[in-house]
Amino acid sequence: MKLYDAAWAPSPRKVRIYLAEKGLSVDRVTIDLRADEQLGATYLAINPGGTVPALLLDDGELIDDSVAICLYFERLHSEPALFGRTPAEVARIAARMRAIDEQGYAAVVNVFRNATPQLAGRGLTGKWPDVPQIAALAERGRLMWPRFLDRLEAWLGGSAWVAGDDYSMADIAALVAVDFAKAARLPPATGRPAIARWHAAASARPSAAA
Amino acid sequence: MKLYDAAWAPSPRKVRIYLAEKGLSVDRVTIDLRADEQLGATYLAINPGGTVPALLLDDGELIDDSVAICLYFERLHSEPALFGRTPAEVARIAARMRAIDEQGYAAVVNVFRNATPQLAGRGLTGKWPDVPQIAALAERGRLMWPRFLDRLEAWLGGSAWVAGDDYSMADIAALVAVDFAKAARLPPATGRPAIARWHAAASARPSAAA
Repeated sequence: MKLYDAAWAPSPRKVRIYLAEKGLSVDRVTIDLRADEQLGATYLAINPGGTVPALLLDDGELIDDSVAICLYFERLHSEPALFGRTPAEVARIAARMRAIDEQGYAAVVNVFRNATPQLAGRGLTGKWPDVPQIAALAERGRLMWPRFLDRLEAWLGGSAWVAGDDYSMADIAALVAVDFAKAARLPPATGRPAIARWHAAASARPSAAA
Repeated sequence: MKLYDAAWAPSPRKVRIYLAEKGLSVDRVTIDLRADEQLGATYLAINPGGTVPALLLDDGELIDDSVAICLYFERLHSEPALFGRTPAEVARIAARMRAIDEQGYAAVVNVFRNATPQLAGRGLTGKWPDVPQIAALAERGRLMWPRFLDRLEAWLGGSAWVAGDDYSMADIAALVAVDFAKAARLPPATGRPAIARWHAAASARPSAAA
């Protein structure tokens, strides 16, 4: 088994934090995103989508998505449970992860991909033909982000962690989105005390540095 | 327990197909999207996000996401398994569902929300302040869609169903995306024989009419 990893980028970080929380270690190959190694022939022969992370299983199957990689390990190692235990917990974690992706992470990606001059022509992540940046989509991302933070603040006003009393995959997804927002130069989540408390607690866990 | 459902829209349809495949029935309330009932005070008091479907549990918790609702039932009723059995199946279904969402369904939504004149000012699903349509984003959706279909064709060239030998939640997600593409007036998936075979088989299941 081999994990294709990359420094700095948000999706590989999600997997690293997850593995650290589970106490698991996996053989890793680091792909150099600054040198566009993810779009080079060698990596595209492994993952034609040109995205990182990807997990190559011993039978040759490739899992090319961060959350799916974590689910794979969750089925092999149930404790500590990071995707929930009861049906309601499982559903709450899944629903909040999808909201984080669609409203929070998507907002950051909209800004990052469409407003970073170095990414001209690369409006989508991975291997695509030329995809023009859309300035209005960066604007839409800036509109979405504070609304997402309000939602996150409301969740965290009701529980210690994003999806309940226990730290879960939803915390990992939210932490990565909030930290990635800095790279997109979105305004920080000031004036939201529940987020401030939670962000300090999540960042203080050793996994956050993985 | 009560399911807030709606005719015609893709996300509620996912839940209906899932429930039909599982042989489950749930009390339903139908929200009239054509009358904007999802944005009226009565429904917003139940689901402030203004989206459908949503599942209200007996203890008052609301699950406001289609896939999370299905996962809730999956944990209560394991057979037939629609989210996979082995770790590799679970991961493959999850990865393909996320690709369907991010590359396929997102392409359709980009076109539908940004090119439908009746949706002017409503560029995002649910309760938002005015969100201008972005014509260039509809264009990007038209660029993404055939690439997604190529990917779906490749998956279906290798197995009977989207994520393996068994019908799964990934088939439900893909069927709903492909059928929703008609509403966005995207070109049909012609010249792709594996999709044609699969689409006929998935559409012939009684669940497709749920």
